[in-house]
Amino acid sequence: MERFTQNRNFMKSGFAKDIFSDQEKELPQPPLQKPYEDGFKVFELPNINKDIVLKQDVHKCISDRKTHREYIKKALTVDELSYLLWATQSVKEIRGDNYATVRPVPSAGARHPFETYLAVQNVEGLRKGIYRYLALEHKLLFLYEEEEIEEKITSGTLGQKFAGTAAVNFIWGCLPYRGEWRYDKLAHKVMLIDAGHVCQALYIACEALGLGTCAIAAYDQDLMDEMIKVDGEDEFVVYMAPVGRI
Amino acid sequence: MERFTQNRNFMKSGFAKDIFSDQEKELPQPPLQKPYEDGFKVFELPNINKDIVLKQDVHKCISDRKTHREYIKKALTVDELSYLLWATQSVKEIRGDNYATVRPVPSAGARHPFETYLAVQNVEGLRKGIYRYLALEHKLLFLYEEEEIEEKITSGTLGQKFAGTAAVNFIWGCLPYRGEWRYDKLAHKVMLIDAGHVCQALYIACEALGLGTCAIAAYDQDLMDEMIKVDGEDEFVVYMAPVGRI
Repeated sequence: MERFTQNRNFMKSGFAKDIFSDQEKELPQPPLQKPYEDGFKVFELPNINKDIVLKQDVHKCISDRKTHREYIKKALTVDELSYLLWATQSVKEIRGDNYATVRPVPSAGARHPFETYLAVQNVEGLRKGIYRYLALEHKLLFLYEEEEIEEKITSGTLGQKFAGTAAVNFIWGCLPYRGEWRYDKLAHKVMLIDAGHVCQALYIACEALGLGTCAIAAYDQDLMDEMIKVDGEDEFVVYMAPVGRI
Repeated sequence: MERFTQNRNFMKSGFAKDIFSDQEKELPQPPLQKPYEDGFKVFELPNINKDIVLKQDVHKCISDRKTHREYIKKALTVDELSYLLWATQSVKEIRGDNYATVRPVPSAGARHPFETYLAVQNVEGLRKGIYRYLALEHKLLFLYEEEEIEEKITSGTLGQKFAGTAAVNFIWGCLPYRGEWRYDKLAHKVMLIDAGHVCQALYIACEALGLGTCAIAAYDQDLMDEMIKVDGEDEFVVYMAPVGRI
């Protein structure tokens, strides 16, 4: 299996050797949240309403978790969307002088290298389009309207039509320097693991709310990067998950 | 950031291009579970006892999840251990002619490329040593006794002493060919994401049982591979998590 050696090595731990990262060089840390320019509309998200949790029993949520690829055509509420964002990437605490965030999921070195983008297809009170979650503020940034979002999501997921029928698609953008600043070349393995933490948190939150999701790793990198308007180098899509009513 | 280009590219989706994997070449599929030789002791694990769930409210489990690095010196019960294994990697269903397993976590292409090893330090009724979870049977395979397991775990985690004070360390071994068989060079990214799914499932299960855990990516690859007796090529440690009472 020599053709896989390099990729397999990427999955291993290099932490036994010293790294000399930008953090150790005392270079400035990247921001905890991607900045945004004035002029974009920002929506308040409702406070977390735990009364919308339908399946309260954690044992049942663990036991029932499954992948859902069929959704009914009924909108999500903003309360539900707010809950899913809270359960996956909200900021519970800022540590140090803007050094790190504590969130509902673990992240190596508390780097939390993601921004959560939403392709909103059918959510009550929100126009179809692309949004970004402002985790520090628990708000939504409206990036742009997109009437043909369903078709674009289907092409962006290489023809996986069920993604186009969801109420919303979670699209996680990775800002790799957040991890690299601390872990240099060791950052990339652990940032991928971190993406898994976030997605499993989404599955459990969906179970709790009676919603369905299905993680998607098979997407068109260029189309998805273009959809969330990132350069594909300093930020790029790393993972996706459509959510819909079941 | 040219020095990171290759690693960043590893994090991206290559699924827009065709792959010609061993599955498409109709080569035989690797087994769903690593075989084991006769002569090793196999322990039955108790059936899942949901009465041991202390924090039943899923909202509270999501909300309270945090990293724990301090554990009290009190043994875990085998019921608790059984629950954690069930919640992370148990087999709920076998699909097709031994084609795939359905588990409490998602896995790209349902490959589930992991075996769960346990460094048992303080579990009622189990000798200190290294075990492997037999997911298909929900049993434990006893690999070998190790009186100095705490010290070995501390060295294996590059001096992270708290790992040596846990009741048990979950050590996930990756068998990369399980993923490569289907996804060829695209397998490695998604197997790392899968490791994150499993670990987040462990966090939630620990919250439910009132136990504490803390994911560890910074380990000594050679020492940990040696501990679970794998060759470091066709199987290697990919992630770890100590669990203890808090």
